[in-house]
Amino acid sequence: MSLVLDAAAQDLLFREARTANTFSDEPVTDEQVQAIYDLVKYGPTAFNQSPLRVTLVRSPEARERLVQHMAEGNRPKTATAPLVAILSTDNEFHEELPQLLPHAPGIKDAYFAQRPVREQAAALNGSLQAAYFIIGVRAAGLAAGPMTGVDFAGLQKEFLDDDHTPLMVVNIGRPGEDAWFPRSPRLSYDEVVTTV
Amino acid sequence: MSLVLDAAAQDLLFREARTANTFSDEPVTDEQVQAIYDLVKYGPTAFNQSPLRVTLVRSPEARERLVQHMAEGNRPKTATAPLVAILSTDNEFHEELPQLLPHAPGIKDAYFAQRPVREQAAALNGSLQAAYFIIGVRAAGLAAGPMTGVDFAGLQKEFLDDDHTPLMVVNIGRPGEDAWFPRSPRLSYDEVVTTV
Repeated sequence: MSLVLDAAAQDLLFREARTANTFSDEPVTDEQVQAIYDLVKYGPTAFNQSPLRVTLVRSPEARERLVQHMAEGNRPKTATAPLVAILSTDNEFHEELPQLLPHAPGIKDAYFAQRPVREQAAALNGSLQAAYFIIGVRAAGLAAGPMTGVDFAGLQKEFLDDDHTPLMVVNIGRPGEDAWFPRSPRLSYDEVVTTV
Repeated sequence: MSLVLDAAAQDLLFREARTANTFSDEPVTDEQVQAIYDLVKYGPTAFNQSPLRVTLVRSPEARERLVQHMAEGNRPKTATAPLVAILSTDNEFHEELPQLLPHAPGIKDAYFAQRPVREQAAALNGSLQAAYFIIGVRAAGLAAGPMTGVDFAGLQKEFLDDDHTPLMVVNIGRPGEDAWFPRSPRLSYDEVVTTV
């Protein structure tokens, strides 16, 4: 056995975890989201830049506004999930860098003075953090339903400001009835990994 | 306790795991990489598009060519890590979609006929898979050292073709002496999460 992680954890995070399309009525609490964040915040980003931001859509009014910006096929699940989170990047993340990287305070100005550079770094590192967040939702025993079938321009105008770029919307909760299709196949090791 | 994942797994994957800057001499085997891939391949991507590709740099000659394209500060660790992997996206991932998404064979042409659309989707979903890969390296009891301080244009010419876009280079192995700085602070929950 080449993995150290125990089999139950492998199942919980990867092997048995699935993207849910339906959810039970059980609420997802702020305490659960806080526990998820307090675990996955340790996932690595370049220069610890930590650009991910999370908007929890809790009010019925905000949920209704969000559903309007989802692709047709994503609307029913986004309307009924116990909790929906908008994941975005903060393109002004460099303002926090002196706090986040105390041993190298010069990085902020040396590398991240230009907005396009920050946007590119935030897109990559925010996506890494989005994946850590999905893993964290699963670590809480919940199912995540990440979606990119979204009118992102409309979503941004409705919920974010010009300094933030939306990455995805994630439904969160316990799976409901017929929550998923059968697992789709994956590429084999030899299709993905080459050696030079 | 709001998390289901056991505390040892939390430590292994997030709380005690660190980005290593030095490594021991212990080799990383193909069996370990296969076990990592066979776990993290189940991480979700949009339409199961699975665009991540992994190039293991094993020969001394290839390692030397790779080191030339690393930023100065990344060269010593890239030269001495037991294994180095180049993570990239396959922008022609749509060719595998009929195999990967058997219940919706029309997605390939309906959504992914245009190369710029594929590049954008592959950048996001490949980055999610890069994060799953980093988690998988940790699940094998190894330290990952992901790096974006790379001459990506030079790296691409040297190791990839026009259909692949490099994402990052990852050093892999057991941590050596003085493998890391003290853990840098993270943003608090209230700095990252807002509710509407």
